[in-house]
Amino acid sequence: MPTALIILAAGQGSRMNSDLPKVLHKIAGTSLLAHAMGSADALMPQRCVVVAGHEAELVRAEALSLGVVDVVLQGEQLGTGHAVLQARDALSDFDGDALVLYGDTPFISPETLEKLAEARKDHAVVVLGFEAADAGRYGRLITDGTKLDRIVEFKDATSEERAVTLCNSGVIAADSKVLFDLLDAVKNDNAAGEYYLPDVVAIARERGLSAGFVTCDESETLGINTRAELARAEGIFQEMKRAEALENGVTLLAPETVFFASDTFIGRDAVIEQNVVFGPEVTIESGALIRAFSHLEGCHVSRGAIIGPYARLRPGAEISEDVRIGNFVEIKNATIAEGAKVNHLSYVGDASVGLRSNLGAGTVTCNYDGVMKHRTEIGNDVFIGSSTMLVAPVSVGNRAMTASGSVITTNVPAEALAIGRAKQVNKLGLAEKLFARLQAIKAKKSAGKS
Amino acid sequence: MPTALIILAAGQGSRMNSDLPKVLHKIAGTSLLAHAMGSADALMPQRCVVVAGHEAELVRAEALSLGVVDVVLQGEQLGTGHAVLQARDALSDFDGDALVLYGDTPFISPETLEKLAEARKDHAVVVLGFEAADAGRYGRLITDGTKLDRIVEFKDATSEERAVTLCNSGVIAADSKVLFDLLDAVKNDNAAGEYYLPDVVAIARERGLSAGFVTCDESETLGINTRAELARAEGIFQEMKRAEALENGVTLLAPETVFFASDTFIGRDAVIEQNVVFGPEVTIESGALIRAFSHLEGCHVSRGAIIGPYARLRPGAEISEDVRIGNFVEIKNATIAEGAKVNHLSYVGDASVGLRSNLGAGTVTCNYDGVMKHRTEIGNDVFIGSSTMLVAPVSVGNRAMTASGSVITTNVPAEALAIGRAKQVNKLGLAEKLFARLQAIKAKKSAGKS
Amino acid sequence: MPTALIILAAGQGSRMNSDLPKVLHKIAGTSLLAHAMGSADALMPQRCVVVAGHEAELVRAEALSLGVVDVVLQGEQLGTGHAVLQARDALSDFDGDALVLYGDTPFISPETLEKLAEARKDHAVVVLGFEAADAGRYGRLITDGTKLDRIVEFKDATSEERAVTLCNSGVIAADSKVLFDLLDAVKNDNAAGEYYLPDVVAIARERGLSAGFVTCDESETLGINTRAELARAEGIFQEMKRAEALENGVTLLAPETVFFASDTFIGRDAVIEQNVVFGPEVTIESGALIRAFSHLEGCHVSRGAIIGPYARLRPGAEISEDVRIGNFVEIKNATIAEGAKVNHLSYVGDASVGLRSNLGAGTVTCNYDGVMKHRTEIGNDVFIGSSTMLVAPVSVGNRAMTASGSVITTNVPAEALAIGRAKQVNKLGLAEKLFARLQAIKAKKSAGKS
Repeated sequence: MPTALIILAAGQGSRMNSDLPKVLHKIAGTSLLAHAMGSADALMPQRCVVVAGHEAELVRAEALSLGVVDVVLQGEQLGTGHAVLQARDALSDFDGDALVLYGDTPFISPETLEKLAEARKDHAVVVLGFEAADAGRYGRLITDGTKLDRIVEFKDATSEERAVTLCNSGVIAADSKVLFDLLDAVKNDNAAGEYYLPDVVAIARERGLSAGFVTCDESETLGINTRAELARAEGIFQEMKRAEALENGVTLLAPETVFFASDTFIGRDAVIEQNVVFGPEVTIESGALIRAFSHLEGCHVSRGAIIGPYARLRPGAEISEDVRIGNFVEIKNATIAEGAKVNHLSYVGDASVGLRSNLGAGTVTCNYDGVMKHRTEIGNDVFIGSSTMLVAPVSVGNRAMTASGSVITTNVPAEALAIGRAKQVNKLGLAEKLFARLQAIKAKKSAGKS
Repeated sequence: MPTALIILAAGQGSRMNSDLPKVLHKIAGTSLLAHAMGSADALMPQRCVVVAGHEAELVRAEALSLGVVDVVLQGEQLGTGHAVLQARDALSDFDGDALVLYGDTPFISPETLEKLAEARKDHAVVVLGFEAADAGRYGRLITDGTKLDRIVEFKDATSEERAVTLCNSGVIAADSKVLFDLLDAVKNDNAAGEYYLPDVVAIARERGLSAGFVTCDESETLGINTRAELARAEGIFQEMKRAEALENGVTLLAPETVFFASDTFIGRDAVIEQNVVFGPEVTIESGALIRAFSHLEGCHVSRGAIIGPYARLRPGAEISEDVRIGNFVEIKNATIAEGAKVNHLSYVGDASVGLRSNLGAGTVTCNYDGVMKHRTEIGNDVFIGSSTMLVAPVSVGNRAMTASGSVITTNVPAEALAIGRAKQVNKLGLAEKLFARLQAIKAKKSAGKS
Repeated sequence: MPTALIILAAGQGSRMNSDLPKVLHKIAGTSLLAHAMGSADALMPQRCVVVAGHEAELVRAEALSLGVVDVVLQGEQLGTGHAVLQARDALSDFDGDALVLYGDTPFISPETLEKLAEARKDHAVVVLGFEAADAGRYGRLITDGTKLDRIVEFKDATSEERAVTLCNSGVIAADSKVLFDLLDAVKNDNAAGEYYLPDVVAIARERGLSAGFVTCDESETLGINTRAELARAEGIFQEMKRAEALENGVTLLAPETVFFASDTFIGRDAVIEQNVVFGPEVTIESGALIRAFSHLEGCHVSRGAIIGPYARLRPGAEISEDVRIGNFVEIKNATIAEGAKVNHLSYVGDASVGLRSNLGAGTVTCNYDGVMKHRTEIGNDVFIGSSTMLVAPVSVGNRAMTASGSVITTNVPAEALAIGRAKQVNKLGLAEKLFARLQAIKAKKSAGKS
């Protein structure tokens, strides 16, 4: 059945205490809106309408970046039923199911939504419910065990109804046209003066339509209303990713200190030490070792490579097999070929480093001239002496060498030694004199002050 | 009512297993003594007497640094009543309330002490109690529900009294003169031969004085006796600061990995990534981003600035709007003007950096000549080439440039290019020869060993 | 009584999802096999036989590295009884007790094994049991309270026997010859067709031998079957080490962020800040301060030294009293004498630094010439200017100085100033021209693209 998502993302989220609309806050580097959308990926929805309101332009920009074509505006906040109705025009040419999701509810699982889609075969309207540990003020699903009779708001519920623990998640699926027709009949004759989406169930039943329900674990329905809840959701997400990594055969020395992005991929028998942060788009092959205090984003680390401690791999770092990236080293947009080493205190950006080459401590690729970025090309079996400045654009040929402390501004041919430094002179006794003179100046200054 | 604090800080704290007296151990970088004193700030106490004993000189030094004028010595440890009496001479000229606090009890809340002060209007003596989850061996408050009759030590309590769960925190308030008079009547005819402060309640009642009590949450009365308890108290403090930051609209990606000082201030919509440590006196403005693995002390970060990952801001770092401080960079006692960048592997100390200036990787302000510290002044729109040594005192004018690898020892005029490096020479084939020679030497050495 | 350990280490550990055999996975940097062996150190075993199977060569290599002489192969996995029997030949010349331990059970305490050895004085066979919180499918010890009658597998147990909560840990001790004799009588007439070690108890009893049992806490019997369990075990180990450090008078600001090796030694009143990782063989003396984000392996830090933040001490770093190692500094195989300072962004390897010497930011000991490593010797009271390259082998005499940005290739005599850098030239107006030219090139390129 063709599916259209309607994602409600208009709320202000005032309890977040933020200028950013709630659905743009992030878990694992990805917006809540993207998480909500992603949960329905398995249904391969053909359409997705995001209902924006508060800071709609920011929400629109994020939605468009996620490939959503339709972002509609809910000008006034007149309830969830009203919000869903804003999607009608955008879906006027659409035949199929509408699935209503929430931009601040990131954890609904693909399996749950597939169950929901399945249940649509038997019912005109299907609602997602959950058994609440503490049902509190949630709306209650009143069922006969298999069919859904109606949803009652807590404040309208009898004490018998309040004893029901099957609660409403708000997620609902129905034929798109049917849903909008039902919504037309929803009234706002309640204390808040709002149009409530759940009212469509009773209306459907009045019209002789069948209503069903499926259930999910309460944890899937977790909505984000405060930053504390956001932090908790991030924690839950990280716990899931850590458990998944362990399950997949990754060694995590201290799982609670490792932070993943949604798309982090780590191969079997890779070892991740303590305090490692993964930003988006990182792939670590089997058997690589990521040492403590490392930070990786947008990079690929091959089998047998050892990274860190204190290594920072930035986007475009392509680390080949058996490479060694050591402490206080930053690699950006650079390919490091098999067996190469950058062990200490270096910056390698916009560069390629050839097979087995060794870059000494304090190597810098000077890739920026104040206006533009340029590339550095280092061949195979090259030895770059410590504190060599490679002023790009520049290349160093195979088996070449640079003397430590050299500034390399022109290309170095293969097998050549490039040297660019002044000759050392030892001025005998001068250190002693200098110390004495400086001490005298200091003494004079102190005397002047007192 | 004028208030004098009497803070008991004479105990050895032998279970701390430390040479440092217990009250000088720290939570969030601040001594327990300072925490205890600070809890009464809202009462604006006019006097504060610290009763020292074990390692009294160290305690005195800390107390004086906190602005306390009176530190008195309890030569022998003869009980809490005896300890409080040591403050009598120091307060002989004082008219008003005495409030007895404990140097190892850092979490009494200002609200609780205000309640205590309020209750003093109705009672000659007021004691702070708490409902204990497990009353154990605490002294019990025997009350009629509104008035306090007496405090019984656990070991003297009847089984009926032991069933009482309202326990004595030890905190007590009374008119200063009255308190010392009551203490004169306290006897040490008990197993330990000590003078117990709580005995003043029964004596007050015998004399027809009214005694009252107020209660606080048990968590406020947490005393520190071991390093494990200290670590737990630090954890509780950090939890409170993290919750407060979230409440104030700060995004903490992983709150449990962020460590605050007591005075850390962070603006709304600032983002703090994982593993960030704040030392004392840090202010972060709204919308700044502090990336992972950063360490900040005594600094100010303006809106739009991005710090880290792996940035260290030390005291006196003043970071303006939209500044970028990158990885493995240390800033100390330096002003970085709007839009400036120090992105990689640099040390900037005792310096000013002008608007939009860019400091390349490996920049060092050589601020120390072995004897004294000197300043480096960098103008606006300056481009400092990688691995430039700025030997202070030195200045670089607006729109000037330094060539990478230069050592700058004299001032650079505006718009000038300063260059101080040897010309590069490529010695053809020499690298190949050198490698061969070194290999031969190594082979010879190995042969010699075997 | 002479003791021989028989350590069962043949299992594949397929739930680990790893190419590495289970017993070679590590806790606190030490293999599970080493932990299992180490638990019996107090018995001073005279022999140790490791029964390997899956990836036997890897297990053998680890066992040999731990000083084990006998590694025997269990070719087929026919049960624990069969596994133990593989040790018979290796122990044919041994008279004394055999103690059967498990390579994947690292937490049996020395005290427990001493109790077991003690109980052997009264019984021919002694089994280690534990009271299980949830006895589940463990084998049950059927006792009369003091003597062990038999061990019943869960699936063979009556409902009465299943109600017993005293469970079998698998650890067993008996005279070596007796144990092998009993094992000869064990049959594999069970569903799995395996020879079960616990069956020796019933056989011993049939032969009129006395069987006893001792108990330990359930936590000691924790076996490792998955990476999640391994991570949990690592967590338990770290908790123990942290509690031990606090008990010993070490200050841990945030214990949960400090990671120890099994052999980390830290003196009283040392302070360890947040996020510190200790690799193997680290000794920290009393009163040293290890700041946040530091990483230490194979090093010694003396009293009064301050390390970090962001310091990395590698094997062979010998840090004397009152030394200061600052941020982004790596020390390897180097002795730093009393009062010396290496404060910023430096690499010091294969070196000695004398008393009170000060190494500026960006100092590098260039210890590797592409083929061999060489040493750098720095005397007392030396001042090394920032970004000095010390090209080893090289020495700097007492009270000498190097100018910042110098490359030092020949020895510097005492009291001399070594300088090796080009003179600075300020080319007036050239920066302005360069910026303009670069902007023009960039504009041209952009035009070309559009």
